[in-house]
Amino acid sequence: TNEVDECENYFSRTLLDRKSDKRNNCDWLQAKESHPATVYILFSDLNPLVTLGGNKESSQQPEVRLCQLSHTDVKDYLAQPEKITLVFLGVELEMRKGWHDNAEGGPVEDQDGLVAWFALGIEPVAAEEFKQRHENCYFLHPPMPALLQLKEKEAGVVAQARSVLAWHSRYKFCPTCGSATKIEEGGYKRVCLKENCPSLHGVHNTSYPRVDPVVIMQVIHPDGTKCLLGRQKRFPPGMFTCLAGFIEPGETIEDAVRREVEEESGVKVGHVQYVSCQPWPMPSSLMIGCLAVAVSTEIKVDKNEIEDARWFTREQVVDVLTKGKQQAFFVPPSRAIAHQLIKHWVGMNPNL
Amino acid sequence: TNEVDECENYFSRTLLDRKSDKRNNCDWLQAKESHPATVYILFSDLNPLVTLGGNKESSQQPEVRLCQLSHTDVKDYLAQPEKITLVFLGVELEMRKGWHDNAEGGPVEDQDGLVAWFALGIEPVAAEEFKQRHENCYFLHPPMPALLQLKEKEAGVVAQARSVLAWHSRYKFCPTCGSATKIEEGGYKRVCLKENCPSLHGVHNTSYPRVDPVVIMQVIHPDGTKCLLGRQKRFPPGMFTCLAGFIEPGETIEDAVRREVEEESGVKVGHVQYVSCQPWPMPSSLMIGCLAVAVSTEIKVDKNEIEDARWFTREQVVDVLTKGKQQAFFVPPSRAIAHQLIKHWVGMNPNL
Ligand SMILES: Nc1ncnc2c1ncn2[C@@H]1O[C@H](COP(=O)(O)O)[C@@H](O)[C@H]1O
Ligand SMILES: Nc1ncnc2c1ncn2[C@@H]1O[C@H](COP(=O)(O)O)[C@@H](O)[C@H]1O
Repeated sequence: TNEVDECENYFSRTLLDRKSDKRNNCDWLQAKESHPATVYILFSDLNPLVTLGGNKESSQQPEVRLCQLSHTDVKDYLAQPEKITLVFLGVELEMRKGWHDNAEGGPVEDQDGLVAWFALGIEPVAAEEFKQRHENCYFLHPPMPALLQLKEKEAGVVAQARSVLAWHSRYKFCPTCGSATKIEEGGYKRVCLKENCPSLHGVHNTSYPRVDPVVIMQVIHPDGTKCLLGRQKRFPPGMFTCLAGFIEPGETIEDAVRREVEEESGVKVGHVQYVSCQPWPMPSSLMIGCLAVAVSTEIKVDKNEIEDARWFTREQVVDVLTKGKQQAFFVPPSRAIAHQLIKHWVGMNPNL
Repeated sequence: TNEVDECENYFSRTLLDRKSDKRNNCDWLQAKESHPATVYILFSDLNPLVTLGGNKESSQQPEVRLCQLSHTDVKDYLAQPEKITLVFLGVELEMRKGWHDNAEGGPVEDQDGLVAWFALGIEPVAAEEFKQRHENCYFLHPPMPALLQLKEKEAGVVAQARSVLAWHSRYKFCPTCGSATKIEEGGYKRVCLKENCPSLHGVHNTSYPRVDPVVIMQVIHPDGTKCLLGRQKRFPPGMFTCLAGFIEPGETIEDAVRREVEEESGVKVGHVQYVSCQPWPMPSSLMIGCLAVAVSTEIKVDKNEIEDARWFTREQVVDVLTKGKQQAFFVPPSRAIAHQLIKHWVGMNPNL
């Protein structure tokens, strides 16, 4: 499954080391915030600021690229902390050559040669105004499938940033007592402002970003020659993909696979095998991809959950993967884990 | 890994089918609430009501068993809905013979032969009073390691119930606007009571129980003959176990393993392989168990995270597993996933 790994890590092939030990180091964080080498990526409504790069004039599709801003570009926003959300993402894995030696003066924390990245969420009005001043830039909207157009490494950074920003946008108040909260630890903690709130005694998940584990499974017919794909009403016409669902409290990955497949399609599953996983920043899921071997074949669709589910032959699936949209149906693009699970099943090189 | 599966599902070998389609069926739920065959399990402060059964008088350790109450036992609590938390857990997988035919009268929903289970959280005062009326019963406290004494099937039900009840106890208020919420869908949803709250438009995870994915890993020395175990300050003296940590937003399982091992011990990990998982209801984690192959050997403990980490030889580990507490160190009990991962590595039958 090594080849699968390489491709399925689309949203996690980050170019950053999270350096979580720095999250509590306010001096270091503050020094990095105003350091000239620091990179800011901007978000409005959870949509990242991008630009079209590279082969704009050529016949190929233009490349969508994250805008990497500097402290100068964003310092007016940073001056109004009540209007922004700031998250420390990490430091570049590869040291940049040169600038370290040139750095002069400034606090010592500044001079470790590490290039820090921050995600900065700004308000819609400020975003609109920014766009007007920077013609080449725009906020990627809607996020899906647009996010799948980013380069792998940038996608990883955006997945991390978008998930944490989404948490801040939905979890501004303490779920335990309803009071306002304040941000700590570089954006990875929210602390209740009410004295004596029970959330302040002991360690509670209310203070930390949420990650929702989801199972997504390629269900294989008992005879091994077909697979089960389904579609939801909101999908584009003709698209079929792997079944999926949220893992519930008190459930294993394997049990969740069996429950979801039976609930959605009526098909019973026996053996389940983990293949690989992919973060999915909509808003903050972890898609856990499995192969699941069916032990029954009759399909009984639960119309509340999905619109349709069918057995597709290996031949049909290979045709769809190789010939594309000329077929009677299609599957998600290659950077989605569903695509990779399907490819994994037909035994094709997932990097193609 | 099949043998591992069988044992590691300690907290998920449930005797219930969750029947999530019934969560929206108020009539059915209400009929089941007062049905004489329905089973209630009682919680106070997230601790389940248990009793000592079986070999109480014999030389063996007495067996801790969940108290299964009936509607009659709890109807006074149900009459005061503002003081309780009620969660529909599912129906028994095996139909009970006999009582179905005897059921007379009552609404039709009542007569499907399904035995429903509910978890009922009551207030400390009520719990105290209940205990005084029922001498043989007590609330299991502290939950760990006591929960590991339950029979497997009961442990699965308790894991589900405790996780959902813990969510209700910590998430009473809407994290998006701070308003009060009300319970829906048999205890699996909390809905904001404020008109126009953004959490009411679209589907948001703020309304659903939280499951925190955690990686737990048996780290293997590059030469294959040793494994890395660590201990936290709060552990009992002498206990060592697998390293573990929460998966962060935008991270894969494999990346989280590598980050956590390096953060805690300074050891770098290459290949990571999923083994099996276990729900851990403290309060609602999903422990994802992996083997991780180290590519460096020097240990540099981060004292903020753990107290100690060491390489142990296969021989030392086998001794600890077979000879128990006579050794210089010990590992968690066999029902904990860490124990199973360690056993899996030394190649022993995890069911022993
Ligand atoms: N969902 C979460 N629940 C609790 N602690 C978390 C969570 N996510 C991250 N953490 C961090 O993990 C630490 C507790 O880890 P542990 O000692 O494994 O329970 C906390 O002090 C937090 O810094
Ligand atoms: N953490 C969660 N976030 C969103 N939806 C959830 C969650 N847990 C369970 N659900 C349920 O899953 C449904 C959405 O599933 P989906 O169509 O896969 O996005 C919701 O209507 C809920 O009933």
